[in-house]
Amino acid sequence: MAENKIPYKIYLTEEEMPKAWYNLRSDMKVKPAPLLNPGTGKPLTAEELSPIFCEELVQQELDETTPYIEIPEEIRNFYKMFRPSPLVRAYCLEEKLGTPAKIYYKFEGNNTSGSHKLNSAIAQAYYAKKQGLKGVTTETGAGQWGTALSMACSYFGLDCKVYMVKVSYEQKPFRREVMRTYGASVVPSPSDTTEVGRKILAEHPGTTGSLGCAISEAVEVATKNPGYRYVLGSVLNQVLLHQSVIGLETKTALDKYGIKPDIIIGCAGGGSNLGGLIAPFMGEKLRGEADYRIIAVEPASCPSFTRGVYAYDFCDTGMICPLAKMYTLGSSFIPSANHAGGLRFHGMSSTLSQLYHDGYMEATSVEQTSVFQAAEQFARVEGILPAPESSHAIRVAIDEALKCKETGEAKTIVFGLTGTGYFDLVAYQKFHDGEMSDEIPTDEQLAASIAKLPKVE
Amino acid sequence: MAENKIPYKIYLTEEEMPKAWYNLRSDMKVKPAPLLNPGTGKPLTAEELSPIFCEELVQQELDETTPYIEIPEEIRNFYKMFRPSPLVRAYCLEEKLGTPAKIYYKFEGNNTSGSHKLNSAIAQAYYAKKQGLKGVTTETGAGQWGTALSMACSYFGLDCKVYMVKVSYEQKPFRREVMRTYGASVVPSPSDTTEVGRKILAEHPGTTGSLGCAISEAVEVATKNPGYRYVLGSVLNQVLLHQSVIGLETKTALDKYGIKPDIIIGCAGGGSNLGGLIAPFMGEKLRGEADYRIIAVEPASCPSFTRGVYAYDFCDTGMICPLAKMYTLGSSFIPSANHAGGLRFHGMSSTLSQLYHDGYMEATSVEQTSVFQAAEQFARVEGILPAPESSHAIRVAIDEALKCKETGEAKTIVFGLTGTGYFDLVAYQKFHDGEMSDEIPTDEQLAASIAKLPKVE
Repeated sequence: MAENKIPYKIYLTEEEMPKAWYNLRSDMKVKPAPLLNPGTGKPLTAEELSPIFCEELVQQELDETTPYIEIPEEIRNFYKMFRPSPLVRAYCLEEKLGTPAKIYYKFEGNNTSGSHKLNSAIAQAYYAKKQGLKGVTTETGAGQWGTALSMACSYFGLDCKVYMVKVSYEQKPFRREVMRTYGASVVPSPSDTTEVGRKILAEHPGTTGSLGCAISEAVEVATKNPGYRYVLGSVLNQVLLHQSVIGLETKTALDKYGIKPDIIIGCAGGGSNLGGLIAPFMGEKLRGEADYRIIAVEPASCPSFTRGVYAYDFCDTGMICPLAKMYTLGSSFIPSANHAGGLRFHGMSSTLSQLYHDGYMEATSVEQTSVFQAAEQFARVEGILPAPESSHAIRVAIDEALKCKETGEAKTIVFGLTGTGYFDLVAYQKFHDGEMSDEIPTDEQLAASIAKLPKVE
Repeated sequence: MAENKIPYKIYLTEEEMPKAWYNLRSDMKVKPAPLLNPGTGKPLTAEELSPIFCEELVQQELDETTPYIEIPEEIRNFYKMFRPSPLVRAYCLEEKLGTPAKIYYKFEGNNTSGSHKLNSAIAQAYYAKKQGLKGVTTETGAGQWGTALSMACSYFGLDCKVYMVKVSYEQKPFRREVMRTYGASVVPSPSDTTEVGRKILAEHPGTTGSLGCAISEAVEVATKNPGYRYVLGSVLNQVLLHQSVIGLETKTALDKYGIKPDIIIGCAGGGSNLGGLIAPFMGEKLRGEADYRIIAVEPASCPSFTRGVYAYDFCDTGMICPLAKMYTLGSSFIPSANHAGGLRFHGMSSTLSQLYHDGYMEATSVEQTSVFQAAEQFARVEGILPAPESSHAIRVAIDEALKCKETGEAKTIVFGLTGTGYFDLVAYQKFHDGEMSDEIPTDEQLAASIAKLPKVE
């Protein structure tokens, strides 16, 4: 059997690692809608963006045509410390499910940030350093992005200020401690260190914060302090560009063994992992060279693709950020406090939104307890304790594999295992103790936050 | 430069992975002293050991002559889920230190148990399953071994009872939760579920437990319940045998690139990682084929090699276990409460004790805050957040590399990075907050516990 020749883990050699990122937009006939200046309603120029982002990142953000952008050698060297990540054949899971499907997962959790976020963090820190900046600011929710950025800044000797959603700051002291190990300063958000933070605190005393608030604070600090810029871990085109390294490695590994996937599955919060994982496959689909079923999986408690609207919206609660056209639940939407892990952003990458709108991919939402059931099942047979975010993709991969069992089809399923759940054990404990629930927003709640969308056009 | 050809991470292919474990004792001219029956003072027979351990493991424990023991295919398949582990060239650390030394580390932390412990856990669970047992019992301190065994038992469908030192049970709820995810039952020790536990509680009400107590409880439960056996994560010959996979992979990886190490460094608690890492190198040394400097690193707060005596002692506090000849601080010794992480066992593997006694290896002890300084420095440049245990080896590797900087020697240093520190962030926090101290036992303390050693011979 040729089957037997496929190892449990496919590792590329350093020579086989990507030397350029792939810019998915270059192959899109209908480009994603541009970011707008909320004041003028006009597309943002490079000049307007440069007080917020590093110059080179502004170029990447706006570049819709260059197909491949070289990965600087310094970044490739850093990648070599934790990449290539393995593409794992889930032999044990397949056996346990009794499915004829062949399941593969690209595992991005083997680094201290515990997720794929480091792929973009190191790129953004590199360009900040190259521009001679003193430091960067950012927000973090569950803490993966903040940790990744702390690691990247420590490597390049940059100052790193992280606004951490207050509820996470208090509930995840260990994430905070990892960031401190890497020398970052971590501030619970909303805080009294910014104007927008003080305003939010005055309006909502006792609030435990949200990603949208933390973004507003981080952007304010970056724009008011000379030598600082703001960096973001998802949603933006530049982030999807850096994350394409996930998909490029996956494709090279599959090609090495002549494997063609039928279904590609990724969890979707802001879209950084999904956009990266699917990039080269979606490219082939856009160019008409191949066809794949591509499935975005989101939490039922924060369902931007499946229950949101496709419209211009703010990326932050403070409404100081650019407007992006995306599937959104409205920037005032806050998911249930019971919702564990990340994937709690109200919007979605503009690039992925356009592709979804144009029918190039599907989306589905899954409920929390079924996600943790899949997580536990996966952990017990494949060994890895998955992050709640990643477990959304596991849930749907298992469901698709079970469909194959019914039909007898030996489909090839590839999913993204974005990270590990070492810092999510409070959620696992709730699951074990039967204290986890499946609260999803009512139609009325969604209508209320969507009604507050800015008027554009 | 040929140098440039050595990748950041050397991965073996699945075909290059070891197919047999190496039994270091087979090359020792002076064999380690046998386990004794505490009642008769005579060497324990296979018959006497089989109520405690699985039959096949008893054979491995007593086998001093077979050089290679085949790794069963089921275990090799499980190994493929998390092995081969990478041998990493610490290019970034070398650059940061400005040393001409070449530093490599064998990283065993890329699995959910977070350490090398899984290498032996899966072997012990396999033999228990093969013998048709219902389950196994064990103790765990810092929690790495308990987690590893839970994962292994879940894979083979065995029941798993873990006695967890009470202070760890309370301070490390997340470790406990990972074990629950894998279906293990976790009991804080000392408990009222065993005779020995009730006795210890009566004598020391309010005690927070010790590894020695937990061993006594786990052994009692295994021997009193039909279909159960006891398993141990370190110290024993069988464990060192399974852990030889670390050293065998390391040697194959080095040989592939024609690299000959000058110094091999490992942290030492009970000796499972150190014994595994050095096995094939020590074999060459014993056979007179090569010479290496081999350094065991232990915590100054639990210094069995450097301040203990070489004598027969109990492995447990309840004194129901066999007597082992080893470097020991006395089975009543308990390290300072300030001591973080594992490496808190009062004794040391008999095999390593004999080798140390015969001058085949060195030992050194390091103080806690200097260990965490090394840990933080390593994390910042190499990305990985190391376990406190592993950081003992990092400390000495850095010190040796700095000596090379002084002398200009380009020595090749290999050390074992046994695991990750995700569950040790309370200790990291104490370090950051200046609340960590370097308490070491006084001569009087050691004399008192050593005076209680059993009289043998």
